[in-house]
Amino acid sequence: MSFQFNLITQDADTYARLGEMITPHGIVNTPAFMPVGTQGTVKSMLPEEIKNCGAEIILGNTYHLYLRPGHETISKLGGLHRFMNWPDPILTDSGGFQVYSLGALRKITPDGVMFRSHIDGSRHFLSPQKAIDIQEALGSDIMMCLDECTPYPATLSQSEESLNLTVKWANLCKEAKTNSDQALFGIIQGGSYPDLRKQAVEQIVSICFDGYALGGVSVGEPKEIMYKITDSITPLLPADKPRYLMGVGTPEDIVFGVSCGIDMFDCVIPTRCARHGLLFTNSENIVIKNARWREDNNPVDEMCDCYTCKNYSRAYLRHLYVAGEILAMVLNTIHNVRYYMRLMEQIRAALKEGSFLKFKKDFLNKKMIL
Amino acid sequence: MSFQFNLITQDADTYARLGEMITPHGIVNTPAFMPVGTQGTVKSMLPEEIKNCGAEIILGNTYHLYLRPGHETISKLGGLHRFMNWPDPILTDSGGFQVYSLGALRKITPDGVMFRSHIDGSRHFLSPQKAIDIQEALGSDIMMCLDECTPYPATLSQSEESLNLTVKWANLCKEAKTNSDQALFGIIQGGSYPDLRKQAVEQIVSICFDGYALGGVSVGEPKEIMYKITDSITPLLPADKPRYLMGVGTPEDIVFGVSCGIDMFDCVIPTRCARHGLLFTNSENIVIKNARWREDNNPVDEMCDCYTCKNYSRAYLRHLYVAGEILAMVLNTIHNVRYYMRLMEQIRAALKEGSFLKFKKDFLNKKMIL
Repeated sequence: MSFQFNLITQDADTYARLGEMITPHGIVNTPAFMPVGTQGTVKSMLPEEIKNCGAEIILGNTYHLYLRPGHETISKLGGLHRFMNWPDPILTDSGGFQVYSLGALRKITPDGVMFRSHIDGSRHFLSPQKAIDIQEALGSDIMMCLDECTPYPATLSQSEESLNLTVKWANLCKEAKTNSDQALFGIIQGGSYPDLRKQAVEQIVSICFDGYALGGVSVGEPKEIMYKITDSITPLLPADKPRYLMGVGTPEDIVFGVSCGIDMFDCVIPTRCARHGLLFTNSENIVIKNARWREDNNPVDEMCDCYTCKNYSRAYLRHLYVAGEILAMVLNTIHNVRYYMRLMEQIRAALKEGSFLKFKKDFLNKKMIL
Repeated sequence: MSFQFNLITQDADTYARLGEMITPHGIVNTPAFMPVGTQGTVKSMLPEEIKNCGAEIILGNTYHLYLRPGHETISKLGGLHRFMNWPDPILTDSGGFQVYSLGALRKITPDGVMFRSHIDGSRHFLSPQKAIDIQEALGSDIMMCLDECTPYPATLSQSEESLNLTVKWANLCKEAKTNSDQALFGIIQGGSYPDLRKQAVEQIVSICFDGYALGGVSVGEPKEIMYKITDSITPLLPADKPRYLMGVGTPEDIVFGVSCGIDMFDCVIPTRCARHGLLFTNSENIVIKNARWREDNNPVDEMCDCYTCKNYSRAYLRHLYVAGEILAMVLNTIHNVRYYMRLMEQIRAALKEGSFLKFKKDFLNKKMIL
């Protein structure tokens, strides 16, 4: 069964949209947030816990899985879904961003990226074809093209050169794809230059992908630039394809992104913050190690319906965190992932009711007065 | 509701017994194994996972909970059951063994033990009365008397002196107890000297407790001595009270202990080994990091009905372990705890059928030929 995107509602007040993606492993309601499962696990969560939090799709990292345990091993073992016991949709990235993040350990050539493993220093070469081969072996529902992530800051000519490489690689990825069950998304680069971004949209869209992502955002640029690019570029993308803002972001970023017409997000913020004891709520965020929670018998968030909030006190979570217990990470992660999923449910409900603009204003006001 | 022990079956071939303990938080079928929840959590497990593994009672450590978050805090928050979201029976130790394990950081006096916290070096004094106060604040179903754990090796006169202190403290604990809902167990010391152990049985039993424990075993003595003491002393304990072999042990030790008439066990072996990647099966135990499991798509144990074995391959567990993922500890712990619980279920089933001696022989043979 091949990939399909249905646009259900276009918001009247903003660019926001309600939709659904139909994939071989199930339906994903959009706008959607994808918890990050870097090494074949969303850190500290059982698949059932991810599902119970409301997640319909997760992200897997090609770079990590290629190095360990190896995409061929995963393929032999029945693919990534079976390997990690997650029967629902998976999007895999191309490995490009992780390789880009290796800094001095990688060298970009016109044909791909030479890099050294962060695990054992071994040498590897990631080409557009290889990125597709790996993702086909993993068997994800949605694959991403290998792109060159334009850093921030970059001059216009650097950004242009980088974009040209991304467009060239996008063509090669499309050609390399052999499995019609797996969708393939193109990535819009172009740095902080709106004209380059517009050019990228034209060039990448002309190749014709199943969806389009904004890349090279959230790479150290001031937030206004990320917002400006997202705001000006997203509406230029084809309305009948899903749009994915890669690596974003905070709850505020997500609400903003949705209002620009973004359908998909991924970010390590909920899971990583959880492991460091930062818990999200719609009012103040909670630093669980603080002594003020020592005897606090309330849940993290009275309004939250997550397993953690239904069963444990702030005092207990503080105790577990201070004592360095594994269960601290488990319970904190469940809360934060559910917080993000609840946010997406609220966004979709508001879109359904036609009240998204009000939701957005209320939400951002609430977050800003704190 | 006060504590009750019902002896259901006395095995015809061995000293083994089938029974049940009725506690304020539920019934515990014996012989029982208690997973260890040191700091208000059985490391890496949700309470539901502990329960799903078949555990009916867990152990909490008075020493750890007294130091952090503090028994008064736990009491204010509704007691240990509520604090850790475990509604079923809990046994708390007295803190004596942990304090004993501090070595140079503690000093024994006739009135109790002066010790320094392993967390911040602060000074504390644990007396028999204090041990009961703390356990009453925690609200466990079964409390343990403060004892002096006789080290191995110890001379006869050292062991005698140590035993006298334990008997004195047992009297003080009994006097200090104010809550009739909580059971209190006495502890038999006496080192490796059978005559002293017999004397201990007489003296401790004459104080009249709800159950009796063998202490000072598994403290570095050769296994034959632990076996000999357990074998010769357990049958001398009153048949109508539960008998608890503290800190024991391996699966083989447990089967042996049951055959001597022991009803209760606790040990960190299943949970600690799990975190270090050693997984129990009835045939060979599995060191999950070994390269031989790299592409092994089988569960840890074909015969096991645990969540981990039903859903994950050895290859996946190896990957998680090698990658240092938290989920490795979660899944490994579930398997090992279920292994122990299944062992207890098999023991109880054999006792019910009158086939325990055969079970014991088969089990120990299987373990020994490996």
